[in-house]
Amino acid sequence: MTADAPAWALALLRDARVGRLATADATGQPLVVPVCYALDADGRHLYSAIDAKPKRTRQLRRLRNIAANPRVSLVVDEYDEDWTRLRYVIVEGHADVLTEGDEFSRAVDRLVAKYPQYRQLALPRDSGAVIRITANRVLAWRYG
Amino acid sequence: MTADAPAWALALLRDARVGRLATADATGQPLVVPVCYALDADGRHLYSAIDAKPKRTRQLRRLRNIAANPRVSLVVDEYDEDWTRLRYVIVEGHADVLTEGDEFSRAVDRLVAKYPQYRQLALPRDSGAVIRITANRVLAWRYG
Repeated sequence: MTADAPAWALALLRDARVGRLATADATGQPLVVPVCYALDADGRHLYSAIDAKPKRTRQLRRLRNIAANPRVSLVVDEYDEDWTRLRYVIVEGHADVLTEGDEFSRAVDRLVAKYPQYRQLALPRDSGAVIRITANRVLAWRYG
Repeated sequence: MTADAPAWALALLRDARVGRLATADATGQPLVVPVCYALDADGRHLYSAIDAKPKRTRQLRRLRNIAANPRVSLVVDEYDEDWTRLRYVIVEGHADVLTEGDEFSRAVDRLVAKYPQYRQLALPRDSGAVIRITANRVLAWRYG
């Protein structure tokens, strides 16, 4: 998918420190939350960690939404008071939740490599979960 | 609604320069886009302009989504590499579209007051539209 996206959009998707993830429940009520995430090497999946608080994890609304409706949208953008510099990249896809296995471990490794902050905090490695977003479509926009 | 939100969350909602708006279509496919917006004086409505390109406006996916499903979610957040400074405010509500009338004019005035950039660009005043978000619930979170 991301093969179709322009280079600047891929770079923004790889390097941005925060994205905003939209899910929706079975009735169509959207929820949008800021998320840290990491793009995989092939540019097809994005991973976002849920930290290691199992009880809270099970109750987390974004996870309930994904269980009920796997379709998601994630946006990464740059705001600037000079509006000629505005740009954003939207990833549309579906999400599922990884809690173990090789891909889960690789996703955690990528998240820790991108965000050293995880080394100081509860990591998702043991009791947490990783949201895997499989991109179906990428929409890239910039001014002009 | 916003009467229940803590003061820091109201201030963030009032002052932030960009929010991210999630809509969903009738099938539950979410869409999230960065938006400029202005909060009204009573803190109950948020307004976001669609610029003055009528043909494009009618085709704009966020507007089609709102017509099919008025439920929306908007997040305003501050990212910081010091994760103890993370914070966000989520507004949940419903949206409709204003294209004329007193409230439309007041909304445009508030948007222009917050964003002087609109003075240099096509304003929504004549042929555009303003998305009005009526907040039903505000969720405020900060670290710790």
